[in-house]
Amino acid sequence: MSAFRPCGVVTLTTDFGLEDPFVGVMKGRIVERFPTARVIDLTHAIPPQRAAEAGFWLARCFEYFPEGTVHVAVVDPGVGTNRAIVCIAARGHALIAPDNGLLAPVVACSAHSDIYELAPSTLSALGIRDVSATFHGRDIFAPVAAELASGRLAPSDLGERRAGLAHGAPEEPLGGPGAARPAQPGQSVRGKVVTIDHFGNLITDIDSTRLAPLRDPHVTIGGRVVPCRRTYGEARPGELLALVNSFDALEIAVAQGSAAAELGVGRGAPVLVWSSPLPDERNPL
Amino acid sequence: MSAFRPCGVVTLTTDFGLEDPFVGVMKGRIVERFPTARVIDLTHAIPPQRAAEAGFWLARCFEYFPEGTVHVAVVDPGVGTNRAIVCIAARGHALIAPDNGLLAPVVACSAHSDIYELAPSTLSALGIRDVSATFHGRDIFAPVAAELASGRLAPSDLGERRAGLAHGAPEEPLGGPGAARPAQPGQSVRGKVVTIDHFGNLITDIDSTRLAPLRDPHVTIGGRVVPCRRTYGEARPGELLALVNSFDALEIAVAQGSAAAELGVGRGAPVLVWSSPLPDERNPL
Amino acid sequence: MSAFRPCGVVTLTTDFGLEDPFVGVMKGRIVERFPTARVIDLTHAIPPQRAAEAGFWLARCFEYFPEGTVHVAVVDPGVGTNRAIVCIAARGHALIAPDNGLLAPVVACSAHSDIYELAPSTLSALGIRDVSATFHGRDIFAPVAAELASGRLAPSDLGERRAGLAHGAPEEPLGGPGAARPAQPGQSVRGKVVTIDHFGNLITDIDSTRLAPLRDPHVTIGGRVVPCRRTYGEARPGELLALVNSFDALEIAVAQGSAAAELGVGRGAPVLVWSSPLPDERNPL
Repeated sequence: MSAFRPCGVVTLTTDFGLEDPFVGVMKGRIVERFPTARVIDLTHAIPPQRAAEAGFWLARCFEYFPEGTVHVAVVDPGVGTNRAIVCIAARGHALIAPDNGLLAPVVACSAHSDIYELAPSTLSALGIRDVSATFHGRDIFAPVAAELASGRLAPSDLGERRAGLAHGAPEEPLGGPGAARPAQPGQSVRGKVVTIDHFGNLITDIDSTRLAPLRDPHVTIGGRVVPCRRTYGEARPGELLALVNSFDALEIAVAQGSAAAELGVGRGAPVLVWSSPLPDERNPL
Repeated sequence: MSAFRPCGVVTLTTDFGLEDPFVGVMKGRIVERFPTARVIDLTHAIPPQRAAEAGFWLARCFEYFPEGTVHVAVVDPGVGTNRAIVCIAARGHALIAPDNGLLAPVVACSAHSDIYELAPSTLSALGIRDVSATFHGRDIFAPVAAELASGRLAPSDLGERRAGLAHGAPEEPLGGPGAARPAQPGQSVRGKVVTIDHFGNLITDIDSTRLAPLRDPHVTIGGRVVPCRRTYGEARPGELLALVNSFDALEIAVAQGSAAAELGVGRGAPVLVWSSPLPDERNPL
Repeated sequence: MSAFRPCGVVTLTTDFGLEDPFVGVMKGRIVERFPTARVIDLTHAIPPQRAAEAGFWLARCFEYFPEGTVHVAVVDPGVGTNRAIVCIAARGHALIAPDNGLLAPVVACSAHSDIYELAPSTLSALGIRDVSATFHGRDIFAPVAAELASGRLAPSDLGERRAGLAHGAPEEPLGGPGAARPAQPGQSVRGKVVTIDHFGNLITDIDSTRLAPLRDPHVTIGGRVVPCRRTYGEARPGELLALVNSFDALEIAVAQGSAAAELGVGRGAPVLVWSSPLPDERNPL
């Protein structure tokens, strides 16, 4: 079910930014072992150390890549300590990351996934030596990803199979796909802002399935009540709106503007969605 | 004349930024349909919604790519509404964008171009389903670009041929190549700042052809008079200069510094170029 | 020893940023001449005009790419003047840059390197015409890199061999690999901050070889005394630490934080490393 047949594509998700040569040298290490790799940046702008945000995006994005893609995610405050590295085979994809909970949302949204822990002996067998204490992205993740993407190594070759991740999501549950129960009729749904995109849209951990039972839903955030729309173009420029975005997450936006600037809220801000009319609970935050 | 023979290269121009995984998933969708695509980022830093700026750059850049390149431009405030998507075949290239005027500068600078409107039936024929209301870059532009770049689809296969774009340039004319008449001897030339580059250089909508008749031209901008040079190295560090840049547009710069910071002006700032001496009009702005 | 056999990989290092289409059109020019080039961004965030910082990174990064890589570096305040362009063949790699000292750290760390100056006649022979005065990255470096990476041109075909670079490092010596002598027992080592990475880590020009003779080394920077660790995870979150980073340079960091913000220092800040105890010299800066 989760058989992994590599297609030669590798994606990278890190908190390294693009200012420094860190991402470039990872790619150098990948093409050194697998010259025809097609490496695609998913994002390198995860806020430093926020493994949960990397997992949030990875769980929502990995299936937009061809089956057989190797996804590398390095948000790794424990680099150089004895934290493990794990590889998950799920839905025909392979994902590799530190075992710090980053991959929990991927496991949560996959009916079946196999988890393997990278063994030190695998590194020796691959000729991976001189591993630095601070840059495993270059020294371990890149060469291992190249071996997986080239098909010379299967996820199950990396090391022992594990029953689960050593850590759940690195923060309180982020409401990954399927992680929270849907609203009951008449109920409201609570969540929070997980990330803010380039446009200042506030993306929440509330997925559309949780909203389905709500009638004429409205959103309360930052002390404001926001109506739900289907798309940005249905609101007037400058107007606040909420919508289920293209990654199936509730998002608060300003048409042709920035909701983050308009509302003055950021990551972690509480969000309430309620059926209208819900007279006693309009501004409960 | 504008026959399109794909070379396998796809460029991307958006206002998505690089912080989020939006550009990455577009690339995932492209390589899913066309694994050997070579995808090149032109820019993802178009200011949000400024389709005119995307068109300004695209018209000046697309011919630096090999003939047969597919150029995808997504600056799309109308996503999810009934705005059309158009594909232009011009000078051996194919360009696809929302029909919001973004491609007007490309049409303006191409002696001959064919314009086609993407038909809904084409999407069905290509198996493009589950199109979101908010992210056509991923759900429509990426797969269609892959089909064009692979050669499985020609621009003329997308839908009906159109006589012109539904919209001209999305703002007042930006003086795209050939869009404005050259100065007459003794006249001055007026324009404005279109974009500001990474160095703080102020790039205007005034092309070199308009400047040709001027004698010893000087530029007035932000209340300052700026001399014209051939290259940055001809000015002393910190000195203001104007030059015709490598995209054939008049640019105001500070040698080894930022003209935007020095002059305190931004996009839309008026620019006057005049023959020297022009005693009564030195500081007319 | 420095024979160059191209592998088809090209890296790019510039101060162009990623906001504008400058890097994209360079890639267009490369794939136009060499369609199967695999182009990897090393960094485009070198501070404007700081050729020394580009050389610092390039010298520390180029060997993480496969032998046969062509490395293009364009930090070029003298573009359009009569500054030369040089190509270095070193350790199986080819590196091409303006002759402004950018490549000095690469020469300094290579036991043997061959230096060639690009001749104007080579440009004509390659059909490189219409060279702009301001964008040699697109008009010269990109097509020449494509010719080198494709193997149609060898470094020695570019022009006359040179005995050395016209300029040393563009600022005071940056302590490139091997550039400074190691400490003597009981001595301290002085250096400075060369660059600040995405995490706010302060990266210095002090390499590990210089530190080897020091006993229980401590670092003084910004009036603070900082202990040395092996990896970030050995410090408590928020704690200052110094370590030899994965590029063999001394770095001052804050665990899960920003040393630049904590210390309020930037590029050029003096750094002292001393054997503990060294009572009379603890805060000598």
